[in-house]
Amino acid sequence: MSATGASTSDAGLPAEGRGRAVIENLDPCVDDGRFAAKRTLGDEVSVQADIFTDGHDALCAQLLCRHESTDPWQRIPMRAGLNDRWQGTFRVTQLGHWHYCIEAWVDALETWRSDLKKKHAAGQDIALDLARGPGLIAAAAARAAASCAADDAQQLSAWAQSLEARADGIEAQLQSAQDAHLHELARRHPAPETLSRSATLTLLVERERARYSTWYEMFPRSAAAAPDTHGTLADCERLLPYVAQMGFDVLYLPPISPIGRSERRGPNNRSEAHEGDPGSPWAIGDREGGHKSIHPQLGTLADFRRLVARAAELNIELALDIAFQCSPDHPYVREHPEWFLKRADGSIQYAENPPKKYQDIYPFDFGCAAWRELWLELASIVEFWVAQGVRIFRVDNPHTKPFALWEWLIARVRRRCPEAIFLAEAFTRPKLMYRLAKLGFSQSYTYFAWRNGSQELRAYFEELRSRPVRDFFRPNLWPNTPDILTEYLQFGGRPAFTARLVLAATLGASYGIYGPPFELMEHQAREPGSEEYQDSEKYQVRFWDRARADSLRDLITRINAIRRDHPALQSDAGLQFHAIDNEALIAYSKRSADGADRVLVIVNLDPQHAQSGWLSLEDSMLEAQNAVTTEPALTTEPALTAGQAGQAQGSFQAHDLLTGARFLWNGKRNYVALDPTTTPAHILRIRRRVRSERDFDYFL
Amino acid sequence: MSATGASTSDAGLPAEGRGRAVIENLDPCVDDGRFAAKRTLGDEVSVQADIFTDGHDALCAQLLCRHESTDPWQRIPMRAGLNDRWQGTFRVTQLGHWHYCIEAWVDALETWRSDLKKKHAAGQDIALDLARGPGLIAAAAARAAASCAADDAQQLSAWAQSLEARADGIEAQLQSAQDAHLHELARRHPAPETLSRSATLTLLVERERARYSTWYEMFPRSAAAAPDTHGTLADCERLLPYVAQMGFDVLYLPPISPIGRSERRGPNNRSEAHEGDPGSPWAIGDREGGHKSIHPQLGTLADFRRLVARAAELNIELALDIAFQCSPDHPYVREHPEWFLKRADGSIQYAENPPKKYQDIYPFDFGCAAWRELWLELASIVEFWVAQGVRIFRVDNPHTKPFALWEWLIARVRRRCPEAIFLAEAFTRPKLMYRLAKLGFSQSYTYFAWRNGSQELRAYFEELRSRPVRDFFRPNLWPNTPDILTEYLQFGGRPAFTARLVLAATLGASYGIYGPPFELMEHQAREPGSEEYQDSEKYQVRFWDRARADSLRDLITRINAIRRDHPALQSDAGLQFHAIDNEALIAYSKRSADGADRVLVIVNLDPQHAQSGWLSLEDSMLEAQNAVTTEPALTTEPALTAGQAGQAQGSFQAHDLLTGARFLWNGKRNYVALDPTTTPAHILRIRRRVRSERDFDYFL
Repeated sequence: MSATGASTSDAGLPAEGRGRAVIENLDPCVDDGRFAAKRTLGDEVSVQADIFTDGHDALCAQLLCRHESTDPWQRIPMRAGLNDRWQGTFRVTQLGHWHYCIEAWVDALETWRSDLKKKHAAGQDIALDLARGPGLIAAAAARAAASCAADDAQQLSAWAQSLEARADGIEAQLQSAQDAHLHELARRHPAPETLSRSATLTLLVERERARYSTWYEMFPRSAAAAPDTHGTLADCERLLPYVAQMGFDVLYLPPISPIGRSERRGPNNRSEAHEGDPGSPWAIGDREGGHKSIHPQLGTLADFRRLVARAAELNIELALDIAFQCSPDHPYVREHPEWFLKRADGSIQYAENPPKKYQDIYPFDFGCAAWRELWLELASIVEFWVAQGVRIFRVDNPHTKPFALWEWLIARVRRRCPEAIFLAEAFTRPKLMYRLAKLGFSQSYTYFAWRNGSQELRAYFEELRSRPVRDFFRPNLWPNTPDILTEYLQFGGRPAFTARLVLAATLGASYGIYGPPFELMEHQAREPGSEEYQDSEKYQVRFWDRARADSLRDLITRINAIRRDHPALQSDAGLQFHAIDNEALIAYSKRSADGADRVLVIVNLDPQHAQSGWLSLEDSMLEAQNAVTTEPALTTEPALTAGQAGQAQGSFQAHDLLTGARFLWNGKRNYVALDPTTTPAHILRIRRRVRSERDFDYFL
Repeated sequence: MSATGASTSDAGLPAEGRGRAVIENLDPCVDDGRFAAKRTLGDEVSVQADIFTDGHDALCAQLLCRHESTDPWQRIPMRAGLNDRWQGTFRVTQLGHWHYCIEAWVDALETWRSDLKKKHAAGQDIALDLARGPGLIAAAAARAAASCAADDAQQLSAWAQSLEARADGIEAQLQSAQDAHLHELARRHPAPETLSRSATLTLLVERERARYSTWYEMFPRSAAAAPDTHGTLADCERLLPYVAQMGFDVLYLPPISPIGRSERRGPNNRSEAHEGDPGSPWAIGDREGGHKSIHPQLGTLADFRRLVARAAELNIELALDIAFQCSPDHPYVREHPEWFLKRADGSIQYAENPPKKYQDIYPFDFGCAAWRELWLELASIVEFWVAQGVRIFRVDNPHTKPFALWEWLIARVRRRCPEAIFLAEAFTRPKLMYRLAKLGFSQSYTYFAWRNGSQELRAYFEELRSRPVRDFFRPNLWPNTPDILTEYLQFGGRPAFTARLVLAATLGASYGIYGPPFELMEHQAREPGSEEYQDSEKYQVRFWDRARADSLRDLITRINAIRRDHPALQSDAGLQFHAIDNEALIAYSKRSADGADRVLVIVNLDPQHAQSGWLSLEDSMLEAQNAVTTEPALTTEPALTAGQAGQAQGSFQAHDLLTGARFLWNGKRNYVALDPTTTPAHILRIRRRVRSERDFDYFL
């Protein structure tokens, strides 16, 4: 009947059966650790996990973290919340990769201490229980000694001996048994056979602009001060104050490399180009050079470096376009024909999506026999521009190149330049867009441009905020791009531009506009049903009257200033939608990580009609506001009593940061009306109305 | 500028950059493959994954599966659905573990074929494109030859040559290029450098009773035919027809081992027992033996084997209780004191949850130095009973023993006896209950007993049906147990017992009752606020009048018959809740995997008052019903035209399987009223009303 004689060697027993803590369901965690979760420098990272054990014993859990460049783990105690969910936090103070994991174990000494207390409180005899302590403590002391923590070992030994020797009664012994400092010491030396450790996960820590950025896209060749003139990088330099004054901090230029002549496209993408037609900047490469050269009509590398430096003085970073494709005239075609797919007649296969043909573009054959050399050369393009001072790259159509290429290339560039930021220009199927974000892109274009209704906007942004999407996908919202002039903008007039601007700038911590078409409200499509601009800059040089009286420039300036003033708008983490009883209106708020800042936005999505409705705000919305305000001028006022605060809670001031208007609100349901002919949106700061003891009203 | 001279060896390039297919988000998948998903024998397993690649090329994906005992993979083509979600299915035809994974690759030949078609349809010249084919096909032929598929190689080569040689015009070449059979051949030989393979996941396939079982719990010592007599296993044998007639297929007996004498508990769990008090069956072990012995008053091992055999004749399986704990008199205590925790005075530590003490129970020290020997002995207990013919085990308080013990022990027993079924008796925190299910328990007790409101019932069962819980946690619903006499049953009278019975039997493919207290509606608690039965069988022998006129026996018989007749009720997969506008009512349906069977249940949760409300059924509910019916008697009738079917759709017959009543329903909203004094529930089969051409009404 007994197993004493049985062999335990071939019984398939686990190597160690005494690790009783379970660690599950870590957050953040992307695809079980296959990809890094993203954070930005200075973030307080909250790590959560389900941690539990069998039975009633006490658990101890520690969060371990370290930057990839440092070796010893930093250990942070974790705390249990509801439903076996534990949490620990650490601050990421260095760019690059951070690793983290969790260790947990059943804490025999803590179990002993807590049981002692319970039994004593119930009036039970604890003499025998007390007597178990010295052995447990001595074991901890031995482990401390074994790991060369001589001081810990000495203190723990002394504690064990004093407990053992103690003759001054149960109460004194009990008190000694509860010594928090000594328990803390003992916790540093858990029994190794009881330890459970989670898988090690990785965070990618980027700089703040990966999370919060304000983009302006502009074609350099249309930057000239006079009509019928090809713009230059020097013209761009001249326009920097215009861009900076509006509050943009990223200036994104479509490709600035030489443009191919063979099969060049004409204005409005006509298949024949005439003498003087400039072609598409995405048809990269000509006899003057390829991806590492600058189009001669734009200027020189020296001009470019000066532009980068001048922009930096105005807190603007230049973003370049990375389009891994060639015109038929690109030097690569001559020098490395092995990087391209051949047709049966020996010619190089142009780009196509049958039955569509793009004969001015030769795609690389990324899976060719010489793929290693090709990939290295492609990486060297990005590295070349990094060497010129560029830190931000907008990658053209990354979803038509291998995922493995991006994962490798981005990691390689980032290792050498941790400041590098990559924006994925993929407007394709959702799973592909998410995959690109997972494998390293800092930011991603989104479906925002085509989400116009309140339900679809809400559903989309709730998906983007869901776990784990929020941990790898940073949306960058664009109301327009050179490829996208939406129907909403074509037919909605100024209210449509205003509404989309407010939505992009407040729903997204990162957003961008393609100007001057945006601020000048260009809305003529090439033909009905098309999202292409009439006379698009993609195929011709345009001249823009940036000083036009009806420009949205002032509104953009105002909105970007609000973004700068409000940390709530500089992150996507704190987004929450609110109920409003009119489908044509949308209401949401954003809150900063520390809860100290909160902004409420309401937009009329109908550019044709005034719309009104009743807005419902949750208690938390109003409470959060109460918690964070400080009294600006009246700091000598006596603090309000709870009763007074309760009374005051019914009254609020909704202060519109966009127009300066102030509305008096009462309770949780309030009436909102927005007329598109004036301003179709509110960007509100909720201020609490307070009546002081001296019968003086003010707003916090 | 060119990288031709650069070294590719130390560039951190991926080992293979040409595998372009991505396989993500597999389902079923429990904790990223750490645990097996559960299925039952004969199930059609649907495996889904997000599968995609960059660009526009055609993908091919195959599901690979095999039983653990067989080596070659079975390959099943997968098909793409919406949003890059692919699916493939296989049938599990053997108990034990099955492995599965997915292979996907960009299919160059299929891309070629599909592009050809598109270009040709657009009137483009495809001569050059056609000419690429023979090379692609020849490459496939070479791979076939390399993998010793000579026949495939030969056919493919012939195809390549015939395409090459062909002079009979584009149309004929195009047709040859589209040959489906040859494409199928080529797909068997993908280029290895393009293959992506997912991780390999595991399914645990158990027999049907793991999914669908009907339990009856009974104390053998109360099975005697006369009062004041200790029941025996022979008495249990005599009662088998009683149990079988009600429709139960598992008869679960609390521990049948010798009961300790030291610290024995008296009636109603009093701390002092008198001569003749039988003690708790969970205080296992006396001088007559321990876990592998039978209590002398119950009978002998031969009696037990006869009971097992007799039960099997009535399609009843015996389930035994596994309680890994000892009375102070258990032989283990004497023979293996090293398996128990000692107190400071050398005595063995009894069970406690401070300040509560359970001095009649000695828990094992599962993490003692001799844990390996202890664990092997514990496994040998289960193996002993397996050898006596037991295949089902109800495990007592598994959450107070190490998780690693269960994972190892269950796997070990199951390897030797794949029919073994384990039910986890853990009423503890949710994460622990889920963990036990993940690591191998076939079925689990639930919080069902305490969910009485419609909202909480719905929320709980929707959680249990959510992914991945549904793949590892099989609920077994008990309205009562010897430890649980809920307030609802204490005070709700017969309607409460009926409502809970219907809920358990229809919400759960597995459910059980503790009888005779359930069918005799025992509802007297030991004291106010307690869920313990007055004069509980746990501490004394009871005599039951099973023939009492008010017994629920007939109702139980009817409900279990309905379960047997309806595959929809034999699985938890097809559960769906329906809207009903009265919180006191709950409505849900269950549907069989093949859609052929559907049952609608409505329960009045209020045992005191008649309740009524409007039930809303989704279209799908009614359509599914239409799809599955066959005309029983009128098969010679002409099929209904679409128009007639549309007309008929408004009328239904709701046939109550519980009472036989038939209600005429119209449209999607129907009125339901349930009076607890008659029957507080409907179990309905929806029958479609059809008017035939000969103006004859019948119900399908």
